[in-house]
Amino acid sequence: MTRHRKADKKVALRLKGLVWIARGENTFLGHGRIKLLEKIREYGSIALAAKSMEMSYKHAWDLVDSINNQAGESLVEKAKGGKGGGGARLTEAGENAIKFYREFNKDLSEFLREEEKKFAIR
Amino acid sequence: MTRHRKADKKVALRLKGLVWIARGENTFLGHGRIKLLEKIREYGSIALAAKSMEMSYKHAWDLVDSINNQAGESLVEKAKGGKGGGGARLTEAGENAIKFYREFNKDLSEFLREEEKKFAIR
Repeated sequence: MTRHRKADKKVALRLKGLVWIARGENTFLGHGRIKLLEKIREYGSIALAAKSMEMSYKHAWDLVDSINNQAGESLVEKAKGGKGGGGARLTEAGENAIKFYREFNKDLSEFLREEEKKFAIR
Repeated sequence: MTRHRKADKKVALRLKGLVWIARGENTFLGHGRIKLLEKIREYGSIALAAKSMEMSYKHAWDLVDSINNQAGESLVEKAKGGKGGGGARLTEAGENAIKFYREFNKDLSEFLREEEKKFAIR
């Protein structure tokens, strides 16, 4: 909660929402993890993806490990060989997870717009 | 994020969501504020409502003040007179806000159930 200050009436009340995917109490995929997957796809490297998000390499690896374990299959896999080796790439399941999550968020925006039509307190 | 541990495959992946009402970057009503309003309705007192939520009286007052200011009208008002005086009650706008928020959350649950039908990563 932010500290109280006089409301700026020029800014309208808006409905907000956040969605994620969980297994029990554990996050499987949320905004930060999806961003990490997208950066791994962009850079082809967990190290570079972590750096771009100002995240430690260890933390990025822990997240990838958690994602792969939660899914019961790899969403990110090490790219064998190639110049410099050691790269990483998304599997088809990884691509599908990003695609689903982005659609899920678009649908959430649509849901919030529809709910706003019903919103009134007087 | 929780620390990684081996996923319990007996617990299914589920879609989760959280919704709230905001004015710009400020929260107008979310889960905690709605609970406070409901407790004020239940106890007829901000002090007792705060106590039931293990919240300081000052914090509860600050929240009520923020809610009333964000709304541009009172959702909670002081109940004049009566035994002991100093009570508080919800206005019609306060009742409407709770009603809307509870419906909003029911609709969110329905939305998440519908999205789960689409959810697949393989």
